[in-house]
Amino acid sequence: MELQAFIRTIPDFPKPGILFRDITPLLANPEAFRSVLEAMSGWATEAGAGAVVGIESRGFLFGAPLADRLGVPFVPVRKEGKLPAARLTVEYALEYGEARLDIHRDALPAGARAYIVDDVLATGGTALAAAKLVELLGAEVVGMGFLIELEGLGGRERLADYAVRSLLRLEES
Amino acid sequence: MELQAFIRTIPDFPKPGILFRDITPLLANPEAFRSVLEAMSGWATEAGAGAVVGIESRGFLFGAPLADRLGVPFVPVRKEGKLPAARLTVEYALEYGEARLDIHRDALPAGARAYIVDDVLATGGTALAAAKLVELLGAEVVGMGFLIELEGLGGRERLADYAVRSLLRLEES
Repeated sequence: MELQAFIRTIPDFPKPGILFRDITPLLANPEAFRSVLEAMSGWATEAGAGAVVGIESRGFLFGAPLADRLGVPFVPVRKEGKLPAARLTVEYALEYGEARLDIHRDALPAGARAYIVDDVLATGGTALAAAKLVELLGAEVVGMGFLIELEGLGGRERLADYAVRSLLRLEES
Repeated sequence: MELQAFIRTIPDFPKPGILFRDITPLLANPEAFRSVLEAMSGWATEAGAGAVVGIESRGFLFGAPLADRLGVPFVPVRKEGKLPAARLTVEYALEYGEARLDIHRDALPAGARAYIVDDVLATGGTALAAAKLVELLGAEVVGMGFLIELEGLGGRERLADYAVRSLLRLEES
């Protein structure tokens, strides 16, 4: 399936100079959405995933149905201050700005095999922060899956310690 | 299945006096999560849903797998300023504060039968705003499904024009 037809490019969002990749046309097409989830299910199964970690909020859109399909726990990694129970926090640099991510301290047992999912891999900062949170819990990151990989931002290099898969490689700009 | 065992209550989050209902234990239990999605699938099918509308961000956790299970389009309703293309905005009052919700102008065709999903029904303000957005597009709200309904906040009364279903009714405090 030609997934790229379901990604809409919006110039200058959220800031001038940024080409935003809008996934809502893909979400609106059940065949395209299913095709992405089937690919991610294959990757996660191959990696021996025992849990899916989704990064707020667009990572939830792929991570939650992936966990449902696999029948494994879903763990949210959220922006700072959203998770209500005892948590761990990691600070990281974004493509545009800085941010913090939280995970619940009881989100994963030590030794769990976590598969991290998000919609877009850009600089890799967000995914690396999520991986650190998983590892701080004593769990293992067995792979990372993205719908879109933006080339030329160094994301794959930054995540060189992990098994990274993506469905679409697009130019940064 | 006794779903209530998978809801953790956190006092004074995000503000003093608020009892926060934490759904992460439910997401971490594949049987409990599946049981919720099966119930929601039944409601949406019964309502003749042709699309699922999920409210950012915890509504994504149920809405996306529901759309995947039903094989219908998924439409995100997001907090202000997150959706990149042409959009409509509605302002509304929260249980604690004020907020705005956006939908893409091309998210649903006129006449579409939309099923709205979120994790918690409190005052109903967020769900009502999402319903208004759907209706501004000329689409129809054929029902609303929630995991948790907080009693005593008037949510069900405020949504009296809609077919509202929930799996768990909990005391507000």
